[in-house]
Amino acid sequence: MSETQILASYVVNGRLADIPQNVLHQARRSLVNFMGCAIGGAGDEAVDIAMRTFRPFSGVPTANVLGRAERLDPLHASLMNGISSHVYDYDDTTPKNYSHPTCTVAAALFAYASVNPVRGRDFMEAFIYGFEVSSRVANCVYPTHYDFGWHITGTAGVFGAAAAIGKLLRLDEQQMIWALGLAGTQAAGVREMFGSMGKAFHPGRSAQNGYGAALLAQAGFTSGPHVLESPRGFSAVTTGGRFNLANVTRGLGVEFDLLANTYKPYPCGIVNHPTIDGAVRLHDQYGFTPSDITAVRLRVAPLVLDLCNQQGITKGLQGKFSVYHGAAIGLVRGKAGVQEYTDAAVNDPDIKRVREAATATGDPGITEDQARVEVELTDGRTLSVFVEQSLGNIHKPLSDRQLDEKFRDQAVVNLPAADVERLIEMCWKIEELDDVNEVVHAAVPASARSGSHAVTA
Amino acid sequence: MSETQILASYVVNGRLADIPQNVLHQARRSLVNFMGCAIGGAGDEAVDIAMRTFRPFSGVPTANVLGRAERLDPLHASLMNGISSHVYDYDDTTPKNYSHPTCTVAAALFAYASVNPVRGRDFMEAFIYGFEVSSRVANCVYPTHYDFGWHITGTAGVFGAAAAIGKLLRLDEQQMIWALGLAGTQAAGVREMFGSMGKAFHPGRSAQNGYGAALLAQAGFTSGPHVLESPRGFSAVTTGGRFNLANVTRGLGVEFDLLANTYKPYPCGIVNHPTIDGAVRLHDQYGFTPSDITAVRLRVAPLVLDLCNQQGITKGLQGKFSVYHGAAIGLVRGKAGVQEYTDAAVNDPDIKRVREAATATGDPGITEDQARVEVELTDGRTLSVFVEQSLGNIHKPLSDRQLDEKFRDQAVVNLPAADVERLIEMCWKIEELDDVNEVVHAAVPASARSGSHAVTA
Repeated sequence: MSETQILASYVVNGRLADIPQNVLHQARRSLVNFMGCAIGGAGDEAVDIAMRTFRPFSGVPTANVLGRAERLDPLHASLMNGISSHVYDYDDTTPKNYSHPTCTVAAALFAYASVNPVRGRDFMEAFIYGFEVSSRVANCVYPTHYDFGWHITGTAGVFGAAAAIGKLLRLDEQQMIWALGLAGTQAAGVREMFGSMGKAFHPGRSAQNGYGAALLAQAGFTSGPHVLESPRGFSAVTTGGRFNLANVTRGLGVEFDLLANTYKPYPCGIVNHPTIDGAVRLHDQYGFTPSDITAVRLRVAPLVLDLCNQQGITKGLQGKFSVYHGAAIGLVRGKAGVQEYTDAAVNDPDIKRVREAATATGDPGITEDQARVEVELTDGRTLSVFVEQSLGNIHKPLSDRQLDEKFRDQAVVNLPAADVERLIEMCWKIEELDDVNEVVHAAVPASARSGSHAVTA
Repeated sequence: MSETQILASYVVNGRLADIPQNVLHQARRSLVNFMGCAIGGAGDEAVDIAMRTFRPFSGVPTANVLGRAERLDPLHASLMNGISSHVYDYDDTTPKNYSHPTCTVAAALFAYASVNPVRGRDFMEAFIYGFEVSSRVANCVYPTHYDFGWHITGTAGVFGAAAAIGKLLRLDEQQMIWALGLAGTQAAGVREMFGSMGKAFHPGRSAQNGYGAALLAQAGFTSGPHVLESPRGFSAVTTGGRFNLANVTRGLGVEFDLLANTYKPYPCGIVNHPTIDGAVRLHDQYGFTPSDITAVRLRVAPLVLDLCNQQGITKGLQGKFSVYHGAAIGLVRGKAGVQEYTDAAVNDPDIKRVREAATATGDPGITEDQARVEVELTDGRTLSVFVEQSLGNIHKPLSDRQLDEKFRDQAVVNLPAADVERLIEMCWKIEELDDVNEVVHAAVPASARSGSHAVTA
């Protein structure tokens, strides 16, 4: 059997009952993390513009868009969910291939579940198999694919979305092969888009196109049978032939990439994370006020100063590329959520003063997971902390409660606080629900909730 | 200025008045050829399935689909027009890069013109600049891109569709750069789909995605600025860095790839064309009947037997890969149109007998543009012809009247003959029309014609 066939068979025949408990729990964590990101990003300008552009072309608006009042057809809802969940670069990461597998898969699934009755356990099953497909395809082509300049989140993600929707549609093996083929022949997204709205467009379009590929396959639209292994298929074509097919099938059904999934504690470049960690720790331990601080000294990996050496900033987006801002928000607010990367936060007088009191030294002895943060106070004390392992990496994952906190911090921007608490609870128990539309309803403003499903697949 | 910027500026500032007459005439020929292909392919199963799949997701159905009774939103209409115009592999070819530039560009333009008032001259202007963008992008990445396994018709075509629709939307230079960027980051389609419905899906999706990219750019959705030249942009990423940027800008405004556009006389692999030519010539010159034929001997380039050596066939699609079938239809019917590649034609007793009386020899002294066809008749005569240059190649193009004949042969399958004649006439004069919707109306069954535009862009 070819790798495409093996992977299709894996998805078609996989059962939730075969999934180990620790994988299941990691799947819950991924969905909690996703939902917070999607709601938090739903008000971003990129989503606003995409909504304004495509709403006139939407089919019957039966599907809710997470965190938004408007409804769209489910394919367009997939697009919007995918953009919003990735737009703050705050979603999950599989360290093996630097892709963000949940955003495309879950973006499509929640749109589907908004218009079709889906039991929680079926949703969870489709999510897990979709995630594994996406990450295994990524493993097959990483690192050459990424080095060439592909945005792997979009290119591998379209396979995951097709597999997940195909699973809910109960495709047979032949149809699943077509779904993967039609997904792979739509795989797209280049890193030249980084720094523009185009980046977040990738997982959105991939969610939409993967969903569409599954629908086409169900209806009998044929594809080439060997999208993964053919010399003219996805893997070869996007890597100039430098890929590893064994990564598609190795340990299938026994090893799960979900177990290695990680969640960012802060919505900014990962190299700033150890500095923020240290600053938050000092804030929490010593309880000083901003006016107590007279100087901040950072020792960081040299790469940090290559990437994030911005002072004199005025915009939220610039804050993501300033290690000084990272230190300041940690010391002043004891946290670094989306609220700390707004224009308002960057111009907050306390944060600004502490940021401008900060200096940094690149030190080759410090890894990219480490940082030293030193603070001088008005009373003459010098406080300091050395961060050995950055929070959120695979060795020091966010706890479930920290994921709740991250969720809250994002979701309250677009939903009432009481709704947020209820939604967090539902997300943790998603596989117990009779109908996942309950979660979707809880994830949109009250005005956008519909009474019943309109079955349009 | 970067190549992306130069190309964007070329499109934004280009005027129909700057286009030489011979280019204009070639543009007319390309549109005539396209329209016949789109109507002829509109009833294919691939279009039926795509229609059935996506119709429930269509926005307000204001746009006509060429050759079909159903209406869709204009983005979905672009998709269908693109599939139908390519599904029989009968559309145009630019020999420099083996792409089929018209299908994506015109598929989007006719869908747009179905819902927005567009003057004929503006339509023609947008088509010409869109075609040039598509072909120049293809020139930039050919041949490595194609050798890697990309289906260049889809990948380069999405740029052309974005440029053409962007031209009609009157995008400014910044917006056009975004449109090209958002097109390029959706460029997709691999050759593993050849032989399946997935192949024709490529220009369809590219027409739709290019159209969407132009709409997004108009609304302010940003992209990276250097999609063509960046080390993480389209050209580098799809070729592993082996591309030639000079091909994007060389002779811009003076040289036109449209002048080198070619049109297939027969809907089958191009290597069979010289044999068909020879068979048709013998048929026309000697007027024998099928029962007169006792043996057929072919001498062809060796590649022909590698690719098209099928005997014992029963399906229309197999006929495309049988040089014997090509000879038989030429000798029996004196033509090789879409009617000669149906299941019925392959099983026609006269055609079957002549096909089975044929043998072929590969001869390294014969080029892929040449063939010798020899026929033995019951009266003892042996007739023979040597084809030096295959009809339809750049040195021996189809005449305008032969394009009419090709159009008729395809279009009568889906439209009444009287409508077909009127439509041919309109296509030749498209730039004189006050509103291109007149052509679109003439290209659909009477029941599908709407009274007026619904402006939804």
